[in-house]
Amino acid sequence: MKTKAVILTSGGLDSATLLAMAHSNGRECYSLSFDYGQRHRAELNAARGLAERYGDVIHRVVSLDLSAIGGSALTDMDIPVPTTPQEGIPITYVPARNTVFLSLALGWAEVLGASEIYIGVNAVDYSGYPDCRPEFIAAYQQLIGVATKAGVEGASISLETPLIDLSKGAIIDAGLRLGVDYSLTVSCYQADEMGRACGECDSCRLRAAGFEQAGVPDPTRYR
Amino acid sequence: MKTKAVILTSGGLDSATLLAMAHSNGRECYSLSFDYGQRHRAELNAARGLAERYGDVIHRVVSLDLSAIGGSALTDMDIPVPTTPQEGIPITYVPARNTVFLSLALGWAEVLGASEIYIGVNAVDYSGYPDCRPEFIAAYQQLIGVATKAGVEGASISLETPLIDLSKGAIIDAGLRLGVDYSLTVSCYQADEMGRACGECDSCRLRAAGFEQAGVPDPTRYR
Repeated sequence: MKTKAVILTSGGLDSATLLAMAHSNGRECYSLSFDYGQRHRAELNAARGLAERYGDVIHRVVSLDLSAIGGSALTDMDIPVPTTPQEGIPITYVPARNTVFLSLALGWAEVLGASEIYIGVNAVDYSGYPDCRPEFIAAYQQLIGVATKAGVEGASISLETPLIDLSKGAIIDAGLRLGVDYSLTVSCYQADEMGRACGECDSCRLRAAGFEQAGVPDPTRYR
Repeated sequence: MKTKAVILTSGGLDSATLLAMAHSNGRECYSLSFDYGQRHRAELNAARGLAERYGDVIHRVVSLDLSAIGGSALTDMDIPVPTTPQEGIPITYVPARNTVFLSLALGWAEVLGASEIYIGVNAVDYSGYPDCRPEFIAAYQQLIGVATKAGVEGASISLETPLIDLSKGAIIDAGLRLGVDYSLTVSCYQADEMGRACGECDSCRLRAAGFEQAGVPDPTRYR
């Protein structure tokens, strides 16, 4: 029997690679995305499309109204997305986002009897978010052991972070070997409804640098 | 300046007491409830009503579609609520519920600059849920230190669990001294739209025993 894994997918470059890795590892893949009041639907459509290409991946979208608690340029329409690099933790940080997403992934993993959760955090080319760091992942793994029925009954649910030490270029390189079509992914914080990128935000800059680093043409659709 | 605190409120007996405690501790109170696909709205109405009585408590409801991941009698209409005591962790356990709720409380606490989160977990008269135990709270406190912008920048957000060692009777006793009107609270897993209780589920049984223990009349409205 295949090992079941919940894969956190956003429709972006990293999580498309993550899903390809879990799938090529022979996992029975359950792809999980969130409709959390983000600025655009393009990334949700991309996440669904990327999962459906495999034919044997179950994809779910959990709706969750993060705009009710506000506080980020990604969910609060009154805060503009910055187009120049920021000092410290940027305003695009969504408070406790990965904590919230992992919690829901954990709930689904319990229901499914899955033993792995894949999350595409990256400690190299990241955007300064506290909940992308290895110490966050380690603390969350500790929590899982005591938080769940599975943990109490002795079953383990392991957090898998295969991208954590990879540069953006190395992630793209790995994904291309696994057949990921990056033209289907959307990374831009303010993509339009067609999924076309601004080319100016922090996420667009990291992505473009990644394709340059990997030495391959950038398939991003810019507007 | 008052210390800001996020209070997780469900509309039940425990969290009504919890909010009264935070308020009487002089906290600026932000009450947070979840519309997570639970069986009835009565508890959400109760949570709002209990918060509004104070006049200076901000109340928010975050919508979150837990029914998308299923797995509990409290969110899955195909699983009946049991009316006899269950062995082990019961089917009314919602996978990773407190983990999810604390994550969203944490996000709101970050946005508000709150330094405390009150959660009404109880390790005495609890229903066998893993995420109500002291070891769960300790692990979550560890996580907070590394998960948030506040934690990284040196501010602390502390989990407050004043009910954790109290019997149901002692909780009721403490609440009555603080003026809590328990007739406004709803604990039943399958209350009707008017908030009237079944008197048969695990939650109703624990509650009724609590009033007996406290030696006060049970103000619960049964149907």
